[in-house]
Amino acid sequence: MIPVKAYAAYNEKDPLAPFEFKRRALGENDVQIEIAYCGVCHSDLHQARNEWGGSMYPMVPGHEIVGKVIAVGAKVTNFKVGDTAGVGVMVDSCRVCKNCQRDLEQYCVEGMTGTYNAMERDGKTVAQGGYSTQIVTDEKYVLHVSDKLDLKAVAPLLCAGITTYSPLRYAGVTKGMKVGVVGLGGLGHMGVKFAVSFGAEVTVLSTSPSKEADAKKLGATNFLVTTDAEAMKKYNGYFDVILDAISANHDYTKYLDLLDIDGKLLVVGLPSEDPKVSPFSLITNRRSITGSMIGGIKETQEMLDYCAEKNIVADVEMINMQDINNAYERMLKGDVKYRFVIDIASLKK
Amino acid sequence: MIPVKAYAAYNEKDPLAPFEFKRRALGENDVQIEIAYCGVCHSDLHQARNEWGGSMYPMVPGHEIVGKVIAVGAKVTNFKVGDTAGVGVMVDSCRVCKNCQRDLEQYCVEGMTGTYNAMERDGKTVAQGGYSTQIVTDEKYVLHVSDKLDLKAVAPLLCAGITTYSPLRYAGVTKGMKVGVVGLGGLGHMGVKFAVSFGAEVTVLSTSPSKEADAKKLGATNFLVTTDAEAMKKYNGYFDVILDAISANHDYTKYLDLLDIDGKLLVVGLPSEDPKVSPFSLITNRRSITGSMIGGIKETQEMLDYCAEKNIVADVEMINMQDINNAYERMLKGDVKYRFVIDIASLKK
Repeated sequence: MIPVKAYAAYNEKDPLAPFEFKRRALGENDVQIEIAYCGVCHSDLHQARNEWGGSMYPMVPGHEIVGKVIAVGAKVTNFKVGDTAGVGVMVDSCRVCKNCQRDLEQYCVEGMTGTYNAMERDGKTVAQGGYSTQIVTDEKYVLHVSDKLDLKAVAPLLCAGITTYSPLRYAGVTKGMKVGVVGLGGLGHMGVKFAVSFGAEVTVLSTSPSKEADAKKLGATNFLVTTDAEAMKKYNGYFDVILDAISANHDYTKYLDLLDIDGKLLVVGLPSEDPKVSPFSLITNRRSITGSMIGGIKETQEMLDYCAEKNIVADVEMINMQDINNAYERMLKGDVKYRFVIDIASLKK
Repeated sequence: MIPVKAYAAYNEKDPLAPFEFKRRALGENDVQIEIAYCGVCHSDLHQARNEWGGSMYPMVPGHEIVGKVIAVGAKVTNFKVGDTAGVGVMVDSCRVCKNCQRDLEQYCVEGMTGTYNAMERDGKTVAQGGYSTQIVTDEKYVLHVSDKLDLKAVAPLLCAGITTYSPLRYAGVTKGMKVGVVGLGGLGHMGVKFAVSFGAEVTVLSTSPSKEADAKKLGATNFLVTTDAEAMKKYNGYFDVILDAISANHDYTKYLDLLDIDGKLLVVGLPSEDPKVSPFSLITNRRSITGSMIGGIKETQEMLDYCAEKNIVADVEMINMQDINNAYERMLKGDVKYRFVIDIASLKK
């Protein structure tokens, strides 16, 4: 067993606090990673506070993990000591169902094993995440990370990156398409970067006029203030695709109305209340709403390789592990550009 | 001008009553049709009673129209006197926008012209529907009807038929696919017939166990009682496609949960309250909700030709024009198998 330092939520109310626990001993297919950085995802907060129900405590959140391989099991073929590696939102799945076989492990028929707040497939070990000094993961669920990129800014690619890359690819976003992005946070800002890199004309939709300069800096061509009824009217039926990365409560109709023929609203944000949708807006222009959950391991690797090639990383603000509770509060206010990343070195002090 | 007898809603409260008005004189591109039968669509009732807002009175409902061509304008090339013909949900559109150019006139950028409760494109004539003895329509919006089929049972194909045919085709329903149909009424029963004819394994979902025998008679393989939580659980993640033809208020999540990877909930029912949808259900299995509104003229003709080839018609119950108000009440109770069709001969007495 491998002792590690961590930060954990001990229950749904109290702030996260130091925690020590043991990782499993290195199995023959396992990779042992010394974690350098871990991104802070809104779902960390949702789960730490049991906002989705079913949380298991103590919980070590974190599923945007990057670091160095420090040991590999006897049968590991794809990683060696010294490699830069990452672990994302899942660490296992059944591996045999039709979805696993099609590299869609995130939709495993038996349910994927989350990186934390989940039971491992041995039925007794609780998976713990990246707010910790090390992680031990089967190599099939470990990603290669290029050394060309700034490692701390790579961490958010493991969740925010793949969560936006996958649906934009699935929707066939390509040169000249009109893409809207709603919710300019950790997910949304990656959505803008990817859609721009695919050649789309990107519009950021926001309630805050103050975000326009930032949107343009990220590569957006247009900026649309969603509280401006006149401006919204002009964009009625305009977009081919809108990426909805809003985690606050909202309804879908307002954005659906902006879609052109066969337009797609891609849902990746997870508000706690179920949004409403107008069937009249759906049948107009044959519009769709499509959900998407992270991406498979193969596609996540493809995304990381694409980012290395195109020099795409997240915009991050570094914090120490000890700042996590304050970071959660700031995240709730949208006060971060655009992703907090924990310097795990701070945990070792 | 052409005098016609009709039944109209004079306001949102009173029963429909006799009405006489004049159709436009035959234009050079027009076809004049002596109406034989007109189907009764739930949207006739919604609009007669102003349940969707914006109704124009007096209103002659009816957009499932079949009859005989009795005159054609000088430039008409596609129809001749004596032809059996139909008129569906639209009688005009802008004809030049990108959607009209792609045979998707129902999604005309300027808005299609509905067969009734709509302003014609001259900006002054109110379009009036098929609860009348004759109709005059531009030949581009008139359909050919095969004499091989029972004409009175063809009428509902013009709305209920194309409304279900088009989304099932768009979703690529084919041999071996698992298709669910919710809402076994005028639309739903056509959805079952089409999905069966495309080779799908069809399941009817209903709150009423009493509908099982009828569902099987229509060709369904399975029947699922949606109030039976255990049975519903077994179908979790089962379907490739579910056609939602419910016009009563409901939420989408219950049906979404039944969809397999990349499954599609096809929305053609139009409840008056906006349904809710769980984003968690959407992101599981990368599910979609897609709306669909009737079909273009080209596809409507394709559907009618397909029905003639496969011998598909609606199951109808004939009524006289004078029975329309009672028929509306029975339709509200779901007491019809599956479509009322008005024998327009009764209007001439």
